[in-house]
Amino acid sequence: MDRIPILRMGHFLLVTIQIDLYDRLATNLESDLVQMVNKTGARGVLIDISALSIVDSFMGRILGNIGSMSKIMDAETVVVGMQPAVAITLIELGLELKGVHTALNVERGMQLLKERIGSDDEDESEADEDSFE
Amino acid sequence: MDRIPILRMGHFLLVTIQIDLYDRLATNLESDLVQMVNKTGARGVLIDISALSIVDSFMGRILGNIGSMSKIMDAETVVVGMQPAVAITLIELGLELKGVHTALNVERGMQLLKERIGSDDEDESEADEDSFE
Repeated sequence: MDRIPILRMGHFLLVTIQIDLYDRLATNLESDLVQMVNKTGARGVLIDISALSIVDSFMGRILGNIGSMSKIMDAETVVVGMQPAVAITLIELGLELKGVHTALNVERGMQLLKERIGSDDEDESEADEDSFE
Repeated sequence: MDRIPILRMGHFLLVTIQIDLYDRLATNLESDLVQMVNKTGARGVLIDISALSIVDSFMGRILGNIGSMSKIMDAETVVVGMQPAVAITLIELGLELKGVHTALNVERGMQLLKERIGSDDEDESEADEDSFE
């Protein structure tokens, strides 16, 4: 597999990382995400890592890169679903995931993004959430 | 990897299939999904297969199984993101994906689910979408 699918959900993009990222996969993910943010005008990026039992320094750097790139494109990044063991390892490794927010799961991550972004861009939206009852 | 992560989003569950399902992975996915539907009271299951360039008869059967199982648990299943080539192959193979709906992408799939399910279960919801503005 060369590419990780990026799902558009309203104002946000969702990426589920299920396998270890190797070089090309990581590079593709970074460039795909930036292009998707540009194309869709997304205001937030959710990255689900609940399937990962290990996050090493490479992965930590990629997540940081994605956060920084998205920030430049005016989108916030939230990493969600981190396993407790991964959180412990990250701290032990001294990795801080600078520039990205974290949340327990996708729902809370989405809530966080909505709070941070507010409702200042409703007019751009073709999102379904708007009509959800 | 033994398990594909299942993300809860409001009333719905979202699964992104990124790699070919082998036996155990498929069995785990089926049982995990049914348990998640039971635990969360989800009304719909979205399965994103945009990363798959091939859907063979095994995968077709698994998708059908998931659809049937979810139906019994009172949840609808929508397969989203199918690549054009996959649609062609499915028809050439004579596979019909009975019991599952399809939609072009996650947003449209979610819209479809919302239309089918209506708003008869708002009270059960701890979903974030309700407060989305």
